[in-house]
Amino acid sequence: MYGPDSTHDPALRSWVESANDPLTDFPIQNLPFGRFRTHRNEPWRIGVAIGDQVLDLKLAAELCPWPARVSVWLEPLAAGHLNAFMALGSRPRRSLRAALSAALAERSEQAPFLELCLVPQGQAQMTLPCNIGDYTDFFTSIHHAKAVGRLFRPDNPLLPNYEWVPIGYHGRASSIGVSGMPIHRPNGQYKLPDQERPIFGPSRRLDYELELGVLVGVGNDQGQPKNMGQAEDDWFGMVVLNDWSARDVQNWEYQPLGPFLAKNFATTISPWIVTQEALQPFRAPFQRDPASPQPLPYLDSPANREYGQVDVHLEVLLQSAAMHERGQSPVRLSQSNYKDASFWTIAQTLAHHTVNGCNLQPGDLIGTGTLSGPAQEQGGSLLELSAGGWQPIILPGGETRSFLLDGDTVMLRAWCERKGARRIGFGPCVGTIAPAVPWPAA
Amino acid sequence: MYGPDSTHDPALRSWVESANDPLTDFPIQNLPFGRFRTHRNEPWRIGVAIGDQVLDLKLAAELCPWPARVSVWLEPLAAGHLNAFMALGSRPRRSLRAALSAALAERSEQAPFLELCLVPQGQAQMTLPCNIGDYTDFFTSIHHAKAVGRLFRPDNPLLPNYEWVPIGYHGRASSIGVSGMPIHRPNGQYKLPDQERPIFGPSRRLDYELELGVLVGVGNDQGQPKNMGQAEDDWFGMVVLNDWSARDVQNWEYQPLGPFLAKNFATTISPWIVTQEALQPFRAPFQRDPASPQPLPYLDSPANREYGQVDVHLEVLLQSAAMHERGQSPVRLSQSNYKDASFWTIAQTLAHHTVNGCNLQPGDLIGTGTLSGPAQEQGGSLLELSAGGWQPIILPGGETRSFLLDGDTVMLRAWCERKGARRIGFGPCVGTIAPAVPWPAA
Repeated sequence: MYGPDSTHDPALRSWVESANDPLTDFPIQNLPFGRFRTHRNEPWRIGVAIGDQVLDLKLAAELCPWPARVSVWLEPLAAGHLNAFMALGSRPRRSLRAALSAALAERSEQAPFLELCLVPQGQAQMTLPCNIGDYTDFFTSIHHAKAVGRLFRPDNPLLPNYEWVPIGYHGRASSIGVSGMPIHRPNGQYKLPDQERPIFGPSRRLDYELELGVLVGVGNDQGQPKNMGQAEDDWFGMVVLNDWSARDVQNWEYQPLGPFLAKNFATTISPWIVTQEALQPFRAPFQRDPASPQPLPYLDSPANREYGQVDVHLEVLLQSAAMHERGQSPVRLSQSNYKDASFWTIAQTLAHHTVNGCNLQPGDLIGTGTLSGPAQEQGGSLLELSAGGWQPIILPGGETRSFLLDGDTVMLRAWCERKGARRIGFGPCVGTIAPAVPWPAA
Repeated sequence: MYGPDSTHDPALRSWVESANDPLTDFPIQNLPFGRFRTHRNEPWRIGVAIGDQVLDLKLAAELCPWPARVSVWLEPLAAGHLNAFMALGSRPRRSLRAALSAALAERSEQAPFLELCLVPQGQAQMTLPCNIGDYTDFFTSIHHAKAVGRLFRPDNPLLPNYEWVPIGYHGRASSIGVSGMPIHRPNGQYKLPDQERPIFGPSRRLDYELELGVLVGVGNDQGQPKNMGQAEDDWFGMVVLNDWSARDVQNWEYQPLGPFLAKNFATTISPWIVTQEALQPFRAPFQRDPASPQPLPYLDSPANREYGQVDVHLEVLLQSAAMHERGQSPVRLSQSNYKDASFWTIAQTLAHHTVNGCNLQPGDLIGTGTLSGPAQEQGGSLLELSAGGWQPIILPGGETRSFLLDGDTVMLRAWCERKGARRIGFGPCVGTIAPAVPWPAA
């Protein structure tokens, strides 16, 4: 992997003043991609977040002079096709990043042109940053696997395959949306512990899951696996992901084929893809506890050992309807870090996914699974924090929660910070629970 | 549901002579949709199979006079967008079917025009009939569930949820192809029974699964479930489906989140979608054994009880490389019938899929799961026929098979026949096993 370059220089400042705010998620060192519009009848356009603004790449391609090579990379973006750009691989990503970084830096000669291409984020409606063809969710946190395993299978919490196989399953692509999408409490079938027969109704154990999502850049042809090196090169970037889960439905349906209706009613992601390049200063070694089996050769590489992990701080906040009414700030429910939570790296999950010839495509979404940390209070879901619902947590003001109630707002946050690097953030991943929709009788 | 109409009249003959062959899959009573081209650099076009010909709907829209209403329905089809036509619902399906049936019938005045729009099927290259956004596979055969359950969990073959929940899971959309697609033996991780640690290599237990697939016509908005009536109306048609499966990989990976790499390397479907209207004369009552629980209200309707099932004959044929070399015909491995195999109907699986608000989209593929019949010899997979590999089957010529070997060709067949109706078929769903691709070292 190339080392951090001038685009990562923590002293680099932008002529977009809000990007220099130490608290912004989007300093000039970040430059994530998203898809937005400002009016309901407009086509969606690709933009780059900078401070509290969006740089409209369609306008930027039209109005601003660029080196010829950069113009070529801007073409698919100006046309609104992030997937086409993602498919081009790491070299265009880096070239464009360098060009945007220079153009947005203080004293850039392109500033007078690009000033005309800024839209305040407050005026931008966001949608999915790219077309997501297939969605796969992994299960990379061994702490989550153990904690949930203990609840679902007290006698057998960590299954024997876990330390060998990056366990994953296919999710539903059609129901993925961005931060702020409506989340209706799902109806479903579940069995109460004291009853013989299942019942049908609104889920009583609605939960969130704190995850990150990886967007595939370069795909692979069917039958042609990616090795670890290709897998590392070919991912485009990351988002925050909330894998909403109905635990009562999950518990009743999940055997033997895995979660289905418990999860596929909605998945929320943050609207900005933080690129692999922006995450570069926050890479960390992958070290497997010597007590655990070492990865099989197809899941191992020197590069993966050297910098396979990513140091991403994560937290979950909750604001109930009553807290909102009282003007009370959201309360933090838990925090963890991706590098401590994940037993498998991004490259390992991608290489594993393709090893049988399965074809990944640009824009495919790969969830990390719930990123619970090692301590019980670092659980990435209410299921874990409330010990399966048996130990409700207490909110400021005295309300309790085992699972989510209607009107609750869940906010996931992710950011990277490290000495010698500028802090970057992922932007919002928020959802508020709306009441169940009545089931339409025949 | 409307009753059979003149488009089903078994005496109806076409001016396309091959459509009158009693053995054709595609008499005038069928009229399935597919996507084809005749030259590599052409765009894909929508066609209707008739006898051994394809009626090119782009040409047919251009060259042939049609009533105004029919021209409107032909528009998306002429443009190559089957999904857009599927989204229109049952009324356009029925109108267009009636118009095509009249135009292709003997003594039609449109014959001189449509003769110019025929392409021999032998000259047509086929691709997926529509864009498949999401793929879900159900598990509707209780005989398969019991047989496989016995092998994977001898102490607990049929799980307690099976008779209450139409069990399903998400599959991989990107790796679905049509009959004839290359099937490479997948590499993967699995554990041999006598070993402590898993190994990596080509699957040694490669299998097929005999399924049907349902294509969604009208979708639903996220958060807005379909009731049973809508679910019945809103499916477009069916194909034959082979859910290729690596049993060694499956056995090692499937807990707790379900099958993943064991299945997602390839799924083959037949290229022609047989419409709900063509299947109309073959509908059959849905009757639940009184010993089993009756469906919950959201999975029940009078119409579903009256004609929820579809009477489709199914069979699996195998031809080994040696048989092929000797000029020996494929041998039948098993036969079953969809209506006897399935514990849940199409409408039940679709209503269940959306009951939590999950949004289905036009063109989504819903597999039925392996359609094993009640008898052991009606198993829809080698896993079942060879009793988990312990009782190899014997092929003509003396070869034995527990699982598929390189060079084996698997042919799935489906057709409908009933007294008083013209037999219709689904066309080919064939695949030949190619050797594993070497894993690309770093």
